Amino acid sequence: MQIFDTTLRDGAQREGLTYSVADKLAVARLLDQFGVGFIEGGWPGAVPKDTEFFRRAQTELELKNAVLVAFGSTRKAGVTAAADPQIQGLLDAQTPAVCLVAKSDIRHVERALRTTGEENLEMVRDSVTYLKGKGRRVFVDCEHFFDGFRHDPQYSRSVVLTALEAGAERVVLCDTNGGMLPSMVTRAIGELGVDPALLGMHAQNDTACAVANTIAAVEAGVRHVQGTANGYGERPGNADIFAVVANLQLKLGMTVLPDGCLELMARVAHAIAEIANIAPDTHQAYVGSAAFAHKAGLHASAIKVDPALYNHVDPAVVGNGMTILVTEMAGRASIELKSRELGVDLAGQPVILSAVTQKVKDMEALGWSFEAADASFELLVRSALGEQLTPFTLESYRVLVEHREDGAVVSEATVKLRVRGERVIATAEGNGPVNALDEALRQALTRHFPQLSGLELADYKVRILAGSHGTGAVTRVLVETVDQSGRDWTTVGVHENVVEASWRALVDALSYGLSKADARV
Amino acid sequence: MQIFDTTLRDGAQREGLTYSVADKLAVARLLDQFGVGFIEGGWPGAVPKDTEFFRRAQTELELKNAVLVAFGSTRKAGVTAAADPQIQGLLDAQTPAVCLVAKSDIRHVERALRTTGEENLEMVRDSVTYLKGKGRRVFVDCEHFFDGFRHDPQYSRSVVLTALEAGAERVVLCDTNGGMLPSMVTRAIGELGVDPALLGMHAQNDTACAVANTIAAVEAGVRHVQGTANGYGERPGNADIFAVVANLQLKLGMTVLPDGCLELMARVAHAIAEIANIAPDTHQAYVGSAAFAHKAGLHASAIKVDPALYNHVDPAVVGNGMTILVTEMAGRASIELKSRELGVDLAGQPVILSAVTQKVKDMEALGWSFEAADASFELLVRSALGEQLTPFTLESYRVLVEHREDGAVVSEATVKLRVRGERVIATAEGNGPVNALDEALRQALTRHFPQLSGLELADYKVRILAGSHGTGAVTRVLVETVDQSGRDWTTVGVHENVVEASWRALVDALSYGLSKADARV
Repeated sequence: MQIFDTTLRDGAQREGLTYSVADKLAVARLLDQFGVGFIEGGWPGAVPKDTEFFRRAQTELELKNAVLVAFGSTRKAGVTAAADPQIQGLLDAQTPAVCLVAKSDIRHVERALRTTGEENLEMVRDSVTYLKGKGRRVFVDCEHFFDGFRHDPQYSRSVVLTALEAGAERVVLCDTNGGMLPSMVTRAIGELGVDPALLGMHAQNDTACAVANTIAAVEAGVRHVQGTANGYGERPGNADIFAVVANLQLKLGMTVLPDGCLELMARVAHAIAEIANIAPDTHQAYVGSAAFAHKAGLHASAIKVDPALYNHVDPAVVGNGMTILVTEMAGRASIELKSRELGVDLAGQPVILSAVTQKVKDMEALGWSFEAADASFELLVRSALGEQLTPFTLESYRVLVEHREDGAVVSEATVKLRVRGERVIATAEGNGPVNALDEALRQALTRHFPQLSGLELADYKVRILAGSHGTGAVTRVLVETVDQSGRDWTTVGVHENVVEASWRALVDALSYGLSKADARV
Repeated sequence: MQIFDTTLRDGAQREGLTYSVADKLAVARLLDQFGVGFIEGGWPGAVPKDTEFFRRAQTELELKNAVLVAFGSTRKAGVTAAADPQIQGLLDAQTPAVCLVAKSDIRHVERALRTTGEENLEMVRDSVTYLKGKGRRVFVDCEHFFDGFRHDPQYSRSVVLTALEAGAERVVLCDTNGGMLPSMVTRAIGELGVDPALLGMHAQNDTACAVANTIAAVEAGVRHVQGTANGYGERPGNADIFAVVANLQLKLGMTVLPDGCLELMARVAHAIAEIANIAPDTHQAYVGSAAFAHKAGLHASAIKVDPALYNHVDPAVVGNGMTILVTEMAGRASIELKSRELGVDLAGQPVILSAVTQKVKDMEALGWSFEAADASFELLVRSALGEQLTPFTLESYRVLVEHREDGAVVSEATVKLRVRGERVIATAEGNGPVNALDEALRQALTRHFPQLSGLELADYKVRILAGSHGTGAVTRVLVETVDQSGRDWTTVGVHENVVEASWRALVDALSYGLSKADARV
């Protein structure tokens, strides 16, 4: 079974979603950890950011499980594939595999593409043959397949057959408008009369059946499924790859992920949501924090005695927990596990483990989230173990932003600190209040900690929580920092004031970086 | 086909959701308008608020389409139905129909209920017979039916048959733990061997298949479906009754609602979300505001010519609309379409259309995005048409954030403006820099524009773009504003400085609000 993820291509069509190239690399790494077989990274040539992604992927993305796929379209009408710059863009992406979208509804061929059915078949044949000849594995997405097949089965079938004859590894039947029900998918695959093991399924969620349609296709013999993390995608989204994979593995008994991967699911789902800057859906099947939550009441004691009677699967197998309601990491077990992952063993220290668990719970209730901020979590654990990690004490800071009469916008920050017994005052400008604060802080610390010059702020994310009172709500800031060796870490700060929240994340970022630099000395 | 809504009973199990009695009455009225056949209002006797709801419903709830249903359980073991106070509570609710939950998994009978299989059957028989004798229509929910049927088909079947023999109008097969897939539902109903027209289906969404499972049951002959508004419910929720109804009516061609009701769907869905105090899911199938949104660009011209090729149903039939998102790949066609959607026709003004298209492209290259900020886009178009929309000119502003020695964090802003020829200076504090700026701006404008007091900041979102230079990157701010009539709009601001970006979004927010308030005068 091929698990083909298109979070970074079709999933990026979701309204309001924008990934930076660094975001795309981070999402690809998470998907690879999760064990998908294919990662469709974008459309090189057509979208400049995607071109850049594939360029950087060549040196920065080491995939353990997944094959990287470049997406593109069949060649234009009236030119050869070899002469089509868009097809060249696919080759330039240097991926082992490409996925070509082909029109398979004659109405779209004639009205949107404005060419003939015969030329469209030629475009499919020529493009697949050419890319195969260049050593690529080729997948073909048959756009609008189901609608087209209903309208003119003969033509849609000829597109599928042409792609297979030309050497496509799988031809993917796309419910592009998302209007199908499972029974319609089953019927169409049966009527198509092509060996379903050569087919794939791509479902959109417009009838709220994307996951079910994908499962129905597999039950009809299809052996390639496309989906996106958390179902992100245009309109009501795509098939949620997490629910698809869990259903295949846990309900149909198919082994579709490498050993040990399924239990990473909840963590990967939440981390991708953080990167996409979309609040995780607490009610999402399998991975939502409330997916296995039970309102107490009637069955509370029965649930305690016999949880298997009340959960459709054991939450642990998908990395979730039964009682996590508000927090993502509420339990001692996960705190212990997470600490061990970061190199701090709390197994023999039950008192500290309890204290850390309680502190995490308290902070999460205030809006903190350590899901995507391992470095802040590690600082919290190590400080519970008695380590002194912040290399200074703060007296005060002040940040000023002015929009002047001449239109210039200037930011200036002053920090007053005690560093190794000495009082230090430093003032710096920046292109925003947080940048000014960062500069001033570095300036104040740099004489004592010259290593700081090697640390660079790589990303900065802001989320407003409980958004019913506008800017009065709590602000959560994530800061990603990178050192000269390319190692990066993320820290978190929360406060009703965005500047203070940023300050907290910045202080953690530098403290963590210095503690690691010291450790290396 | 019976459309049985349980928003107010099973749907209210959703984590964090609480309805007042007035809320429940309002939701019931909306569901009745929408045309469902049955409204399950709660559990009288067991839940005090539900007792009160049924009491008030007798005088305050006039239903046009729906039958009100009281939910309860079969009688306790070892007493007669007539002597069971919980059963009396059901009669006291004075509803034409009752729905009884019965255990149908022998393991739950023995381990949770702690009685025998035989006594459980007696409880079903006695309770149904008694309530029928009191003139009630009786439905029976077979809890944990599918898990029970897999474990011990004989026993689960005997519960179904006992309920039917005792006079239940429909016996509802419940996937209480939500672990089923459509094929499993189809198979179980076939193997059960009971006339499916006497059966109902109740699905939970734990495999992300609740809607599909419900449809599968109908395709297997079931003629009663349960669901909740927007899929609200415990864990990943229940079958979304809106998607179920739309699929039945638009995909399977069944008439399940009275004439004219389906087009109320989007409005009813959003109104119930408002009452439940849950942000409407913009990506919800059929009713989400993005359910028919298309990222324009490539296909915009084709969509304009032939929208039916790109929508699985006509959005108008479910009371929704097609939205064109203005994005990175925007062309003239989508700008024109979008303008028309906002009430500005650029069709006859090619020069202005070109200028706006170019301006949007240039701004998007700088990080602006109008796809979630219709109000800023409208201001841009109207200003290209020569309208003067910002009600002041800025001289300068200044924002100060201090973290003081005592730990207090304070924000203060001063703005200097020209308003209708007069120079105005105003200073205000806030709980963050943007809030302070918003307060100072309102203070400066309020004497000339008292309407401003009716505008409230409803949400504030921040996104850092091109995240390779940390806080030096460009910041995009989205501000959502709401006026006293509940009308809301979103504006955008972009700048490398988060405060200036916020300022721009705030100025647009107030300018747009004032222009609309003026238009109403």
